[in-house]
Amino acid sequence: MKKFEFTEKLIKEAGLKLTDFYLEKRKISEKKDEFDLVTQFDFELQDLLIQKIKKEFPQDSIFAEENGMDKIKKWKNKNLWIIDPIDGTVNFIHRIPFFAISIAYYENEEPVFGFVLNPITRELFYAQKEKGAYLNGRRIKASENSELKKSIIMFGISNFDKLNLLNKFNRKVRRMRLFGAAALHSSYVASGYCDAFIVKDIHPWDIAAGYLILKEAGGKITDWSGSEITPFQTEQMIFSNGKVTQEIINIINE
Amino acid sequence: MKKFEFTEKLIKEAGLKLTDFYLEKRKISEKKDEFDLVTQFDFELQDLLIQKIKKEFPQDSIFAEENGMDKIKKWKNKNLWIIDPIDGTVNFIHRIPFFAISIAYYENEEPVFGFVLNPITRELFYAQKEKGAYLNGRRIKASENSELKKSIIMFGISNFDKLNLLNKFNRKVRRMRLFGAAALHSSYVASGYCDAFIVKDIHPWDIAAGYLILKEAGGKITDWSGSEITPFQTEQMIFSNGKVTQEIINIINE
Repeated sequence: MKKFEFTEKLIKEAGLKLTDFYLEKRKISEKKDEFDLVTQFDFELQDLLIQKIKKEFPQDSIFAEENGMDKIKKWKNKNLWIIDPIDGTVNFIHRIPFFAISIAYYENEEPVFGFVLNPITRELFYAQKEKGAYLNGRRIKASENSELKKSIIMFGISNFDKLNLLNKFNRKVRRMRLFGAAALHSSYVASGYCDAFIVKDIHPWDIAAGYLILKEAGGKITDWSGSEITPFQTEQMIFSNGKVTQEIINIINE
Repeated sequence: MKKFEFTEKLIKEAGLKLTDFYLEKRKISEKKDEFDLVTQFDFELQDLLIQKIKKEFPQDSIFAEENGMDKIKKWKNKNLWIIDPIDGTVNFIHRIPFFAISIAYYENEEPVFGFVLNPITRELFYAQKEKGAYLNGRRIKASENSELKKSIIMFGISNFDKLNLLNKFNRKVRRMRLFGAAALHSSYVASGYCDAFIVKDIHPWDIAAGYLILKEAGGKITDWSGSEITPFQTEQMIFSNGKVTQEIINIINE
C-alpha cells in the first residue's frame, strides 16, 4: 500500500528532525526564548508534514491542530490525514523525553492505518486496518490481565479535580502513571505496557493513530459509560485491554 | 578521582546489559515467566555491580536493596556505595521504557558522587560534591521558576489516598506527572525538566545519587515540614528547585 509506506518513511524523517531539535535545544543556556522556539518548531514540523502529504496526495484532506478541527464534518467521505507533529508538547517544552509524532490516515471517517513514533526511545507503533498492530516490526497485543488490582492504569490528566478520579483509583490498581502524551499512552495499552488509559477532553489528532493501533491489538475503546466510540468522540475515553473496562467504569461512576 | 571514573564506566556497562535484556525480553511471547525472569535479572545485575565494586575496592561497604538497609548505622564512618540496579522496577517489568540505574558513593554518610543512567533515553545524570551536576557532559541547573502555577510537579505515588495529595495539587500547578522512577524524578528536578518531585516512603538507594545531583544543581531537599534532610530520611521528601518549596508545603498541609 503506497500511502502506508510513504507514511512510515515520513514519520521516521520527522522523528529525526524532532530528535535533532530536542538535542540541540538542550544546549540553549538562555531559556527565555525557549517556549517561542519550541512553538515555532512545532508549527514548522506540522507544515513539513502537511507539505509532503499534499505534494504526494494532492486530493486528500489534512486535519491537524492548527488546521481547524471544526471543519471535520465537511471532510466526511473524504480521504483524510490526521496528524499531530508533537504529542506531549508540554513534556517537549520542558525537555522531558516523552513525546511522539502521530500520523493517521482515514477514509470515510474510518481509520485505515496509523503510526505513533517516540523518537527518543525509538519506538514505532503502527497498525493497518485488519492487519494487526506492531511495535518496531513485532506484533503487539493488549494485555490479558482481567484484574484491576494487578493493573497499570494511565491517565490523561486535566480538569480532574472535581471528579476526584486519581484518588478513586489509587490503591485499587497496581500503579497509576501520568506521562502526559496521549498518543503514547494509547499505544502503551496496545503493546501491553499498561492495561488501560483513561482520558478526558482531548482531540482527535491526539489519538487518531492510537485508536486504530489499540483496536488492532485487540483492545477496546469506550466512553465512560461503556459505549464503544469513534476517534472523534474524545470527551471521555477509556482505552483498555477490554478486560478491565467494566471495573474502571464502576469506579469512575462511584 | 579513581572511584568516579570507575563508576562512570561501570554504570555504562550495566546500562548496556539492561538495554540488551530489555530489548531481548520484548521478544518473549509467552509472558507467564516474565516476572521471574525480570526479578532474576535484577538480582544478577545487582550482583554484577557488587562484585565489580568489591573487586576494585575491597575495603568499602555496599548498601543495596537485597543487602540489608537496617545495617546502615553500622556503616557510619565508612566508605559506602549505595546502588539500585533497576530504579522503576514496575515500569521495567511492564516494559515501560522509563527506568534507571543509580550508583552513589558516600563517605561518613555524606555523598561524594552519584550517577543516574536511563539507558533507553541515554541520559546520564551525575554529580560530584562541590563540582556541579551534569547531564551527558553538560552542566545542569534546577529551574528558576518560582510560581507553582507554572510548575511541572512529579510525584512518587504510593499510599497517597488518605492525603488526597494529587487532588490537592491538581489545577494549582501547570502539570502533574507520575513516571514511577524516583532516581529519574529527582534527576529531572536537577536538570530543570520539572520544578519539584514529591515523594513518600522510599528508600535511600532510590535517591542516594539523585540527592547529590540535585544539591549540586542548586536545588533543595526537605521533608514535608520544610526542614532540610539527609538522603537517609526518606519518609516524606520534597526535591525542588528551592523556589517553590514553601508553596508546596502549604498545599500539602492544607
